[in-house]
Amino acid sequence: MSLPLHLRNIHLPLGDQRTGRLYGKDVLSVAQFTRDDLEYIFGVAEAMRNMVAHIGTFDLLKGKILVNLFYEPSTRTSSSFAAAMERLGGSVIQINDVKYSSVAKGESLPDTIRTLESYADVTVLRHPETGSAAIAAQYGRKPIINAGDGTGEHPTQALLDLFTIREELGTIDGLTVTMLGDLKYGRTVHSLAKLLTLFEVRLNYVSPGILRMPAALVAQLEAKGRRQAQYDSLEPVMAETDVLYVTRVQKERFEDLNEYEAVKGAFVITPEIMQQLRPKMALMHPLPRVGEIAPEVDNDPRAAYFRQMEYGLYVRMALLAMVLGKA
Amino acid sequence: MSLPLHLRNIHLPLGDQRTGRLYGKDVLSVAQFTRDDLEYIFGVAEAMRNMVAHIGTFDLLKGKILVNLFYEPSTRTSSSFAAAMERLGGSVIQINDVKYSSVAKGESLPDTIRTLESYADVTVLRHPETGSAAIAAQYGRKPIINAGDGTGEHPTQALLDLFTIREELGTIDGLTVTMLGDLKYGRTVHSLAKLLTLFEVRLNYVSPGILRMPAALVAQLEAKGRRQAQYDSLEPVMAETDVLYVTRVQKERFEDLNEYEAVKGAFVITPEIMQQLRPKMALMHPLPRVGEIAPEVDNDPRAAYFRQMEYGLYVRMALLAMVLGKA
Amino acid sequence: MSLPLHLRNIHLPLGDQRTGRLYGKDVLSVAQFTRDDLEYIFGVAEAMRNMVAHIGTFDLLKGKILVNLFYEPSTRTSSSFAAAMERLGGSVIQINDVKYSSVAKGESLPDTIRTLESYADVTVLRHPETGSAAIAAQYGRKPIINAGDGTGEHPTQALLDLFTIREELGTIDGLTVTMLGDLKYGRTVHSLAKLLTLFEVRLNYVSPGILRMPAALVAQLEAKGRRQAQYDSLEPVMAETDVLYVTRVQKERFEDLNEYEAVKGAFVITPEIMQQLRPKMALMHPLPRVGEIAPEVDNDPRAAYFRQMEYGLYVRMALLAMVLGKA
Repeated sequence: MSLPLHLRNIHLPLGDQRTGRLYGKDVLSVAQFTRDDLEYIFGVAEAMRNMVAHIGTFDLLKGKILVNLFYEPSTRTSSSFAAAMERLGGSVIQINDVKYSSVAKGESLPDTIRTLESYADVTVLRHPETGSAAIAAQYGRKPIINAGDGTGEHPTQALLDLFTIREELGTIDGLTVTMLGDLKYGRTVHSLAKLLTLFEVRLNYVSPGILRMPAALVAQLEAKGRRQAQYDSLEPVMAETDVLYVTRVQKERFEDLNEYEAVKGAFVITPEIMQQLRPKMALMHPLPRVGEIAPEVDNDPRAAYFRQMEYGLYVRMALLAMVLGKA
Repeated sequence: MSLPLHLRNIHLPLGDQRTGRLYGKDVLSVAQFTRDDLEYIFGVAEAMRNMVAHIGTFDLLKGKILVNLFYEPSTRTSSSFAAAMERLGGSVIQINDVKYSSVAKGESLPDTIRTLESYADVTVLRHPETGSAAIAAQYGRKPIINAGDGTGEHPTQALLDLFTIREELGTIDGLTVTMLGDLKYGRTVHSLAKLLTLFEVRLNYVSPGILRMPAALVAQLEAKGRRQAQYDSLEPVMAETDVLYVTRVQKERFEDLNEYEAVKGAFVITPEIMQQLRPKMALMHPLPRVGEIAPEVDNDPRAAYFRQMEYGLYVRMALLAMVLGKA
Repeated sequence: MSLPLHLRNIHLPLGDQRTGRLYGKDVLSVAQFTRDDLEYIFGVAEAMRNMVAHIGTFDLLKGKILVNLFYEPSTRTSSSFAAAMERLGGSVIQINDVKYSSVAKGESLPDTIRTLESYADVTVLRHPETGSAAIAAQYGRKPIINAGDGTGEHPTQALLDLFTIREELGTIDGLTVTMLGDLKYGRTVHSLAKLLTLFEVRLNYVSPGILRMPAALVAQLEAKGRRQAQYDSLEPVMAETDVLYVTRVQKERFEDLNEYEAVKGAFVITPEIMQQLRPKMALMHPLPRVGEIAPEVDNDPRAAYFRQMEYGLYVRMALLAMVLGKA
């Protein structure tokens, strides 16, 4: 493939690089990455973004096969990985209905992984049990990418969240990131917070009292020198927030429904709230949303949540290319 | 790709035509097409037919991704679109089990469409609610193709039905089209009848009394000057019928089962009936059939229903190429 | 595609060979193959193995479409066929949820086959009813590959089992093959035994009394001159066994659970048993396993069951290429 003229000067860290940083490795946890790794991944992801914008697709992974092994449903994540693989010229074998498969007949995860590896080059695994990605990686000979294992990790979501901040605001260092909503049970905000310790950021946590960020995690970030503060409402931090990361406050989390009714309005983003936020900032959400951001906000240029999905494509393209030694 | 010699002189309206008739547009309803549009689409569909016959496949949509988003099952339609995309060198992300996905968690159709659009170039949507394709198109930035929305529209079925008539009989103008069976609830016959108003045809409706073509639709075609007539049995129109379009009479439509038993035999096509039909005509059915055409008829050269499926492939290839600016 | 230098001298029986042995044919039963056919298939499968090892993928079936039509779930078999097609550059339309499709609405198998054939070049069929593959082949115009029809046949499993023996031990003639476990209900061992009559092998059957190899099958092999012997335990034949083919003894087969408890331990392969087996032999299993081979055995070089899955890929690549006239 010869590049169009205006792309010839773009530095693309692509090609056959079997000595590359992630070549042949698994992607299991945000804890495995250094800041250098992230810069490298984001550089590749940005190259992917340019390539998709200008060429649409290219055959970097032609002939490679991804097994998308989903023990629990996640249309969003599985189709994002599928599109990433297909945009790189590779093929996808989608395994959704694990309940119907031999897995349901009692086959162990290690056996399933080793069987599917006979056909494929890389496995993306979504599993309801924490630690299952690590088990899969232990038995598999080929790269495993963790696409969420229970309440454990969902590292590619955290990477795409971080890449979104970088693309939307040009930098990560120096920013104030405010996390809003259910900070107790949200796997997404936990992983993102951990990853943000690699950067010079300030963190605000805004949540109902019963859905606070876990103390252990706060302590862990404290130890890394991050400035953190907790709030009951968004108001005090509106003016300083560069990134507002919204998550859903689920009714089911509340024993006392009166308590839920009392707080829920405080965690819905409306055009009125947008007016009070900084003119340059990013409003993010892992999606799906069910009411926590009003649809009227969607056309606000600061509403980054649909672009966030798109950035996910580029990050996953980068990871697939890297673990297969092509970036 | 260089064409084989015998294809060099075929006029193929293919190539990069971003100014083309349907480029970037949605396909939502039969009402959106003029007769000119249809001629153009059928010209492209015929080119596709030639290409498939002589080359099998070609890379017109290489690198493009179709999301096949089915909120209700339809193996036939979804696999037809998938094959159309793949025969053009594109890729398909199949989303069948919407009940398992975030959609089931309460995500709105506009959010789902915008999310999937981050990964894909075109969306084919099947949805149980009338009007949902229009909603999807309103929020989506990329082309939406309606693959059936409730009792609403199923435009690609009507287009393939019309293309079948054209391919089987060489023309549409001047024909007598007889529709048989359940004309009250059949979405297929309604859409086809509407589309036929763009041509000089005569329409016969043969159905049990309780399953007549809706009066409003008859009036609408009347206003366009089409000649229409209603019958209780096929006999009076056998000799004049050029196209016999059969649909299923479902037992469940009858409150009085005696009534069903009394009429059902009158709406089954047998070799005896085929003997009384014209030697050159087309017997069509949207499939699946369950008894309304006897299997003994399958080998009759006038039995067009399996070829009808195949024509669907070419029409859908044409539509995909056109909305993506390649035809 | 130009081959790397070190591959130029490998004899690859690939290319456009529309006069080839299986071109346009169905793969329905092990009974259809002569020994010559098997040698040819295995030659192509070995070429596929070399190609995958050295190049990964190649475009032999580019533009061809496989419909993977599964009326009952089998992740292993369906993903193996999908990977085989994709490694040859072809595309796959996966139809798993037949219960949701028009098939569920009462469509006949012949109609479904003829409809899907309008889009595709070859159909792989898994169906719960014996004889359904033959019915599909009778109505279909394009090749049907039987991927298991009830208690009937699963010919590609038998072929891959035989190919595994050949690849692991270099030959088939002269070997002693011991089948262990449930020999009464196991479709796999029946098909393999039939296929082995084409070679000079000795067969041992080791099973609980109520799960013996069917007398009719034993008589059939007897008529072909094969030496066979039945045993209650593995011990007497350990020293002479070249291939140990293990299948699961299912609790549900026993009316008297005491009987099950009494025998089950005798049919589990442990490292201790491996010590008593020949230093050069192959331990096989059709997978999934649930306890009948201890995980500690997995790293034994004689444990061939995961490689067996991989050989299945090459055999299915060979069959697809052959029926489509490319090998």
